[in-house]
Amino acid sequence: MKTLIVFTHPNHESLNYAFLQRTLAGLKDNPQTSEVQVLDLYAEQFDPRLVFNENKRRRDMHRDPELERHRQQLMWADRIVMIYPIWWGRPPAMLLGYIDRMFSANFAYRRTGGLMAEGLLKGKSAICISTMEGPPRYTLFWLNNAHKVLMKRALFGYVGIKRVKFFEFGSMEKKNGKQSQKLEQIYQYFKTLTV
Amino acid sequence: MKTLIVFTHPNHESLNYAFLQRTLAGLKDNPQTSEVQVLDLYAEQFDPRLVFNENKRRRDMHRDPELERHRQQLMWADRIVMIYPIWWGRPPAMLLGYIDRMFSANFAYRRTGGLMAEGLLKGKSAICISTMEGPPRYTLFWLNNAHKVLMKRALFGYVGIKRVKFFEFGSMEKKNGKQSQKLEQIYQYFKTLTV
Repeated sequence: MKTLIVFTHPNHESLNYAFLQRTLAGLKDNPQTSEVQVLDLYAEQFDPRLVFNENKRRRDMHRDPELERHRQQLMWADRIVMIYPIWWGRPPAMLLGYIDRMFSANFAYRRTGGLMAEGLLKGKSAICISTMEGPPRYTLFWLNNAHKVLMKRALFGYVGIKRVKFFEFGSMEKKNGKQSQKLEQIYQYFKTLTV
Repeated sequence: MKTLIVFTHPNHESLNYAFLQRTLAGLKDNPQTSEVQVLDLYAEQFDPRLVFNENKRRRDMHRDPELERHRQQLMWADRIVMIYPIWWGRPPAMLLGYIDRMFSANFAYRRTGGLMAEGLLKGKSAICISTMEGPPRYTLFWLNNAHKVLMKRALFGYVGIKRVKFFEFGSMEKKNGKQSQKLEQIYQYFKTLTV
């Protein structure tokens, strides 16, 4: 299995970074061989601004030479792991800009004329690990599950990725938020993951 | 009334730009005097990446000197109009990054220790004008109304802005999407708006 980890947090002293480390440790200790690439969006100063205009056509985005390496990376991966905090009920603009720019027509999906497009990233799976302040049920009940719906339906489902697993960790601002237990959960998950 | 328009589209040949123009025309023809400022995020190459780390503390974000002018602008406004397309079920990363960076603790809200914070932008109102491809009911039924929930509950409600009006225009890719009728609707709305 080839695993791409898209990591989105500005601070390597963060809990998110600890989740990245435990993910990597779990994959390393997994008897099933796994190749891993990490895309650290902040570290590489990824530009999340999707630009198109008279000079840079939207229909040419899927072959924008600036993003060739990132497209290769996405195509290469069987499994996409995204690690990020929840800000204002959804992932940081940095990650959403990666999505705006990367998941372009004729790379990630093809228009069919109907409501749904043909997903071009079929066969891959996705795992989203997110942390947030406040109780974990807040997004589910107060925000209509908006975060998961946007990731699973509006994004992954649309491009053909049907297997999507979520770890939504809440109350992360609290000292008794069971952080070490959750880090261990992630380690064990990746250590024993088979598909 | 002081109106701030936050405009988020990379292309001035776009339908979104036409909505901006009709909004401005309506405000101009409104007998109730209105001062207007436009923040064109793409034109001014706003950087949507929220950064905090050991050197740049998150708790100091509300006085980040880089954003002083933008904070003044938000404070100044009685009414905030946001004009943007819907990409992947939500606003572009550019606008969400403006939100990530601008609506900081101790500027937009103050923590109280409870689930909800104290909103510091009370008394203002917000109007969101969005365009998207596909039927307008798609986001409501298929995406659990995620776009509106994120804007109204996760963002505006949290910072104390209770009056939020939405214009969600769908089927904008179609030639018969009644674009000119919708542009006229926006013009009339702003021409006759009183609060």
